[in-house]
Amino acid sequence: MTILGHHYIGDKRSAQGNLLYSVDAVTGERHPVSFHEATEAEVAAAAQAAHQAFPAFRASSPAERAALLEAIAEEIDALGDAFIAAASRETALPAARLEGERKRTSNQMRMFAATVRRGDYLDARIDRAQPERKPLPRPDLRQYRIGVGPVAIFGASNFPIAFSVAGGDTASALAAGCPVVVKAHPGHMVTSEYVADAIERAIARSGAPAGVFNMIYGTAATGAALVWASQIKAVGFTGSLAAGRALFDMAQARPEPIPVFAEMSSVNPVFLLPSALTDRGTQIARELAASVTVGCGQLCTNPGLVLGIRSPTFDAFLAEFGTALAQAEPQAMLGTGIHDNFRRGLASLRAIPGIEALAAVEADGRIGGHLLKAERDLLFAQDRSLEEEVFGPSTVVVALDSVSDFLAFAEQMRGQLTATLLASETDLQRNARLVELLETKVGRLLFNGYPTGVEVSDAIVHGGPYPATTDARGTSVGSAAIERFLRPVCYQNYPNVSLPPALRDANPWNLTRLVDGVSTRDAVPGKRALEAAA
Amino acid sequence: MTILGHHYIGDKRSAQGNLLYSVDAVTGERHPVSFHEATEAEVAAAAQAAHQAFPAFRASSPAERAALLEAIAEEIDALGDAFIAAASRETALPAARLEGERKRTSNQMRMFAATVRRGDYLDARIDRAQPERKPLPRPDLRQYRIGVGPVAIFGASNFPIAFSVAGGDTASALAAGCPVVVKAHPGHMVTSEYVADAIERAIARSGAPAGVFNMIYGTAATGAALVWASQIKAVGFTGSLAAGRALFDMAQARPEPIPVFAEMSSVNPVFLLPSALTDRGTQIARELAASVTVGCGQLCTNPGLVLGIRSPTFDAFLAEFGTALAQAEPQAMLGTGIHDNFRRGLASLRAIPGIEALAAVEADGRIGGHLLKAERDLLFAQDRSLEEEVFGPSTVVVALDSVSDFLAFAEQMRGQLTATLLASETDLQRNARLVELLETKVGRLLFNGYPTGVEVSDAIVHGGPYPATTDARGTSVGSAAIERFLRPVCYQNYPNVSLPPALRDANPWNLTRLVDGVSTRDAVPGKRALEAAA
Repeated sequence: MTILGHHYIGDKRSAQGNLLYSVDAVTGERHPVSFHEATEAEVAAAAQAAHQAFPAFRASSPAERAALLEAIAEEIDALGDAFIAAASRETALPAARLEGERKRTSNQMRMFAATVRRGDYLDARIDRAQPERKPLPRPDLRQYRIGVGPVAIFGASNFPIAFSVAGGDTASALAAGCPVVVKAHPGHMVTSEYVADAIERAIARSGAPAGVFNMIYGTAATGAALVWASQIKAVGFTGSLAAGRALFDMAQARPEPIPVFAEMSSVNPVFLLPSALTDRGTQIARELAASVTVGCGQLCTNPGLVLGIRSPTFDAFLAEFGTALAQAEPQAMLGTGIHDNFRRGLASLRAIPGIEALAAVEADGRIGGHLLKAERDLLFAQDRSLEEEVFGPSTVVVALDSVSDFLAFAEQMRGQLTATLLASETDLQRNARLVELLETKVGRLLFNGYPTGVEVSDAIVHGGPYPATTDARGTSVGSAAIERFLRPVCYQNYPNVSLPPALRDANPWNLTRLVDGVSTRDAVPGKRALEAAA
Repeated sequence: MTILGHHYIGDKRSAQGNLLYSVDAVTGERHPVSFHEATEAEVAAAAQAAHQAFPAFRASSPAERAALLEAIAEEIDALGDAFIAAASRETALPAARLEGERKRTSNQMRMFAATVRRGDYLDARIDRAQPERKPLPRPDLRQYRIGVGPVAIFGASNFPIAFSVAGGDTASALAAGCPVVVKAHPGHMVTSEYVADAIERAIARSGAPAGVFNMIYGTAATGAALVWASQIKAVGFTGSLAAGRALFDMAQARPEPIPVFAEMSSVNPVFLLPSALTDRGTQIARELAASVTVGCGQLCTNPGLVLGIRSPTFDAFLAEFGTALAQAEPQAMLGTGIHDNFRRGLASLRAIPGIEALAAVEADGRIGGHLLKAERDLLFAQDRSLEEEVFGPSTVVVALDSVSDFLAFAEQMRGQLTATLLASETDLQRNARLVELLETKVGRLLFNGYPTGVEVSDAIVHGGPYPATTDARGTSVGSAAIERFLRPVCYQNYPNVSLPPALRDANPWNLTRLVDGVSTRDAVPGKRALEAAA
């Protein structure tokens, strides 16, 4: 495939701005093809292309929209070894991991196709007219949900396929009937172009309007211009707290504020109950070390804070955990920026009195497992430094005085994507108050598992209260992610023929609908049927 | 009943701050009992009381929560003539209207009780474990939705019962399992105290924790302190664009930003298609005038902009419309502040060259129908003055050149709660593009009806894109209003006994759940049942 480095604006390509380069994640060497920073005019044109595609796209049937998502899935599956090699060069991620990610990405598209076909996301509701009601007649009211409009999407650095150009944000926005403008992550522009081409082929094949998908290259300023574009009606983002909050603040300061779903920062605390360590401390040390170091720790759900109760068993666990972390194979990080940030994050932690480094493996610029131990009181310190995410294969362990410290921490804990309890079933029942507190602070609660490895399914939640995300009411993984990009619209006294198909009496899309308060797939008896029956 | 003028903070009353007074809406005369402006400490105490009630309240079963809502409904129905007289004195609204509003309010509570019992708002989802799946096993994942936490609620001036202390925001927050802190509207503090007492009696009767409902009196600064309180996790508001946007901006600038559902500003455009005027111009003139003047025009859905096509038929309609408006009985407005704002709003419109006053009825400080006519070009002027809401019984009529002007306006129109088409069914089919544009700009589309008179039901939408509201994804009327205060939480590999009832295998709440992608009310076969079957 020829990489052009030009923006995707409707069915056109454009490239007018300053040059940008893709670099080798390990060597820093430049890729021969240059990319372009989108100009203000190009950003505006991309937003406008999405805006123009919206009416036709949102009018598409579930079958048509599902077909587009499935065509994208097929095109992504067909991206071959050159694609994997390019992604590996840009991110230092191993080919096997990227191949898995490609499959995750295409399966995610298929899951949203199934969601669209199921149709429950439309939440169709019909309250039939009651012309005889006293004191006033009730009009005929019908509600369903439509896409909010064009969505700006910022891909993540750490999943160059599954959380990027064709990732969960794009898939859920398209499923909701919203055209997208993707700002390609500067860390993997070649990878992004491969995927954008795949989507373009799928669009051509399925007959969707070209402006359904747009992609621009650029810097933080490009992203800001995109969020500011009046045609953009929502934002999906995965990345750092600083960048996410900045985009959020900009979006809220617009003349017309728009929702921002930014998945940002989490230390994913792990609560080690004493019984679990007694029963299987060695196994936990090994498994937890694997969770900390998988993907070189560059996962949103990386367990960055491990809490136990001071005891000889805990000391033994700690020693084994340190050993397991030290044995993990060092890996190159996603890029030099992330590498530098990781070292800076570690250095600030180490500079805090009461924090001690127990394991710290590095070799030839590759990073292995890092273990830090913090004194109990630091967990409760005003500045919450133990809850600052350090993006990489490190974790901080704290030995607490008692289970009531778990409660005290949970009470003050910041919002997190996940919290994990390693415990017995009896522990779980005895610590109902802890679970209850954690529920109000996280999106996903795990029992005897590890937070990394986020399933793509109907029941998953990848979200949580701030600063895990900017809006706890959303998830960025799983079929419920579609909810973020929908809004209700109601038709009052509309003639049946002019209603959208989802709300017509005959129920042509075979949806489960709430009709006069009862959930049913039945057609609504039309006026004529009612008159005939009378 | 004795009015105390003290804040409701959990099961305590408190009154430390500056004095405030309830005044007669017509005479400006002070009510003998003084109220208090909540101090910073009292605001904090109210937010804390709500926070403390959250764990027990959100753990309540649908039956318990529905019983509370129904108890509130009964207590509101039992509020007698003294209550109606107090509300009428504070708002100048006639007793008959307030009696209707009381019924609307109690029925709204009952609708949310039915919603809670139905349970579909929980959106329970179960993905069963697939231990044999390759390359990785799938964990057991279960998701449902819980309340976001304590909600701050700002009642509206114009519905002292139905959009106030026990209004739709309170009802939907309680239904979602969220305790509330209501900031009583300074325009109807006696009315608010009656309703707060009714809620307090209902809470005592139904055994819910006292902190589920809190209410404070105060000024704009009190409201700001409430939105800033860290325990508050969402805001419901109905009122002006200026006040709503100010609260929104504050909430987004918090260290932890929170969602704000502010219903603010709408001119609810009415599109008069020529055929409708030909068929029944006289009837439309009469009915539309009634919609403009009902409740002295103090309704969010007041039709403030009427668009037709220049013609002799339209001129005839305009004359009849002016006559009908002039014949409407003048009424006192909700208070002197609103009265003054109305006059100021009218004066700014009249000061615009190209706007002409055709009817303007006032008598003894009471306001009747006001009709203004604006030149076509003003509709497309940069400053959008014709889309500025003037809160009261006035409307602006514009004669356009052709139906294509409708399209041009719809393309640039701001967000609105409603848009109305008075047309034939053929017109509707011929103007599909107009409907399509309007769908992206409003929450509710009416065909041959009038936007005032918002039904409380499952299918209603009272919301819309900015500036109609701050979040187009919400409705503040109807059972879907509960969605605003919910967020998803997921349990991974939890033992069945420790799961919330909604997600247990046995389905004790008899919910419709999405199990492995299929909607069902069946129990999930437990591990033992599966083993026995094997």
